[in-house]
Amino acid sequence: MAIANSNYGKLQTSYLFSEVSKRIRTFKVSHPNVNVISLGIGDVTLPLPSAVITALHKSVDEMGDITTFRGYGPETGYEFLINEIIVNDYNSKGIYFATDEIIISDGTNCDISNFQELFDRDNIVAITDPVYPVYLDTNVMAGRSGIYNSSTGKWSDIVYLPCTRENKFIPEIPKKKVDLIYLCFPNNPTGTVLNREELKKWVDYAIENNSIILYDSAYEAYIAEENIPHSIYEIEGAKNVAVEFKSFSKSAGFTGTRCAYTVVPKEINLDSDSGKLNLNDMWSRRQTTKFNGVPYIIQRAAAAVYTNAGKKQIKDNIDYYMENAKIIISALDSIGIEHYGGINAPYIWLRAPNDMESWDFFDKLLLEANVAGTPGIGFGPSGKGYFRLTAFASHENTIEAMSRIKKLKL
Amino acid sequence: MAIANSNYGKLQTSYLFSEVSKRIRTFKVSHPNVNVISLGIGDVTLPLPSAVITALHKSVDEMGDITTFRGYGPETGYEFLINEIIVNDYNSKGIYFATDEIIISDGTNCDISNFQELFDRDNIVAITDPVYPVYLDTNVMAGRSGIYNSSTGKWSDIVYLPCTRENKFIPEIPKKKVDLIYLCFPNNPTGTVLNREELKKWVDYAIENNSIILYDSAYEAYIAEENIPHSIYEIEGAKNVAVEFKSFSKSAGFTGTRCAYTVVPKEINLDSDSGKLNLNDMWSRRQTTKFNGVPYIIQRAAAAVYTNAGKKQIKDNIDYYMENAKIIISALDSIGIEHYGGINAPYIWLRAPNDMESWDFFDKLLLEANVAGTPGIGFGPSGKGYFRLTAFASHENTIEAMSRIKKLKL
Repeated sequence: MAIANSNYGKLQTSYLFSEVSKRIRTFKVSHPNVNVISLGIGDVTLPLPSAVITALHKSVDEMGDITTFRGYGPETGYEFLINEIIVNDYNSKGIYFATDEIIISDGTNCDISNFQELFDRDNIVAITDPVYPVYLDTNVMAGRSGIYNSSTGKWSDIVYLPCTRENKFIPEIPKKKVDLIYLCFPNNPTGTVLNREELKKWVDYAIENNSIILYDSAYEAYIAEENIPHSIYEIEGAKNVAVEFKSFSKSAGFTGTRCAYTVVPKEINLDSDSGKLNLNDMWSRRQTTKFNGVPYIIQRAAAAVYTNAGKKQIKDNIDYYMENAKIIISALDSIGIEHYGGINAPYIWLRAPNDMESWDFFDKLLLEANVAGTPGIGFGPSGKGYFRLTAFASHENTIEAMSRIKKLKL
Repeated sequence: MAIANSNYGKLQTSYLFSEVSKRIRTFKVSHPNVNVISLGIGDVTLPLPSAVITALHKSVDEMGDITTFRGYGPETGYEFLINEIIVNDYNSKGIYFATDEIIISDGTNCDISNFQELFDRDNIVAITDPVYPVYLDTNVMAGRSGIYNSSTGKWSDIVYLPCTRENKFIPEIPKKKVDLIYLCFPNNPTGTVLNREELKKWVDYAIENNSIILYDSAYEAYIAEENIPHSIYEIEGAKNVAVEFKSFSKSAGFTGTRCAYTVVPKEINLDSDSGKLNLNDMWSRRQTTKFNGVPYIIQRAAAAVYTNAGKKQIKDNIDYYMENAKIIISALDSIGIEHYGGINAPYIWLRAPNDMESWDFFDKLLLEANVAGTPGIGFGPSGKGYFRLTAFASHENTIEAMSRIKKLKL
């Protein structure tokens, strides 16, 4: 008799963003004429840069011609893209990789979800709190979470690293030994960053404890301030302990186009019951077995991001979004709402006024201002009473949304 | 201390197709002027149909325009594509599904690799022998294989269903109870099919034993003969026990474009330590958590496959490949080589002459005829002495390759 993976039965309710979508859909059905502005799900709104569109048309034509048609590509990515990544994203910072240390994929979400498969079930997982829910849910599915305590909102076997106003949203080094550490900076959802000294503490901890850092760097392109590392490999020793996940989704608007990459340095060897295993070999084996590569035309699109025109167009788009962040921050300041982030990230993390609960603030914003955001509590217990707004809407919608929020009775 | 998943340490040597590629590369380096013709890896060679190219250009333009740009889509696929699938691939056969029973993905390989995550580790897995290696390797990674015996080439906990000339490559119902059954028909690598009565035996077995059939139907479009089911759901009761995996790779030439779908009927509920779990809910949760959907433009490309023009162009391409199968079969007949398949599938499974071993025949073909194929032994112990040729080359190359093979001293 086929038996299901019982860990799926432990998963808590529906995924945060699905629940948000559902409440918005329900509201729209009962209020068909109301224009709801979403500053919620972190999805881009500007079209693909023209350099990317041009590359897509060109490669589509190649796919229609028998002399240039491409079937299966290398599962881990075409070298034309990998080389652009190495030169532009790493060599420019004095960091060097071999081509097989960069593995192309269809999304950081997919990669960071699948990466945990490479580890034994008994590893202790640490996540920041609040956190992007996927890190947690994928470890629940894999059986690493233990038992859920509905009164604390925490899992018994997960080590939570609280990020609160008290510690300026900078997680503290755990007192307990942990094996896998998920870090995301610039952070989703708080919009905060780690400076070089703060990130170094984590790399040093991982070296000392033989831990692995899974570093989600999806928002790197939004870093504006000095002394904020753009890659964890800027920190000495990181190649021995860190895997870096980077995406074209938020930099080049690829959320509906799907391309990302993961850096797995060859330096990392792990113990196992089968002896030492090399992490780069393992990921490569995982991907060449379970994945067939990113579409050729999408990889050509991603490579176009590194042309001069592509770089300029992407910078313009990011500047556009970060102008929205300024609009949001300025409005929140004007009504005395406490907020964080929005300087080096497209996320603004605000404290709901008058000690309101996150979902209550969500419903109030949706019903009274017709603005959708994301309840902080959905990102973890320390998100209680917080709320996430994103800078991805249009200027017009951002201005209108904030003007509505300013009129709310809070 | 982070500990690796020790199952990765049990995986046997390199993946079959990588080893094939490596030997070809090595040969080409030492013989730079020799034209090696590959009838090996099952990759298409004809360009994307013009209906698909047109749809791609149109949707790329949408992505470049702010009014039609698409960010994150539904993780499980756009309804415009799902509806085409339901109407054309199922309703036409009198089979009905709700839209959320069809889940779009970037490949059958990915889906069938990931699907085993939904099951407890202790399920007993049955695979045909020979078999597409991914079914086995992904279960090794998940810890379901037991121990490898290098003298038999078999894993202790896997139930092998031999497909041999003696049983006409039709697997027999296992004597032992099994929980997960991987079936692929039309079969890769043997090119053989199950008729309705034969497939019904498997569905009946699964119903009786509460087993789940993972039915890989990637080559369905190649079925030419009568009384061969095009979907497992043509068999009564299959919705209670079977998941069907279908791909655009081999039908529409999407191997480098990446689109597929998986059918998970809502009827299937499984026991677990957390109580009954619904398999459709589980897969949907898996995909909405770990996957971000197929690129919008690729889903538009796949939908174009169902236009009248698309259908005609795809049929022409399949006819072209199956003409190659006839060329291969006729050549093998002329030199007295025993062969199977090639009627309802683009694969021809031949018995190496004079009891040669598969890899020896591979090397002989590569070195003496400069033709690459795939050694049968790479697909499992019962593939010993067999060899796979594929119909995906051009007519010219197929004719030339077979003419060289005919001249071999065997």
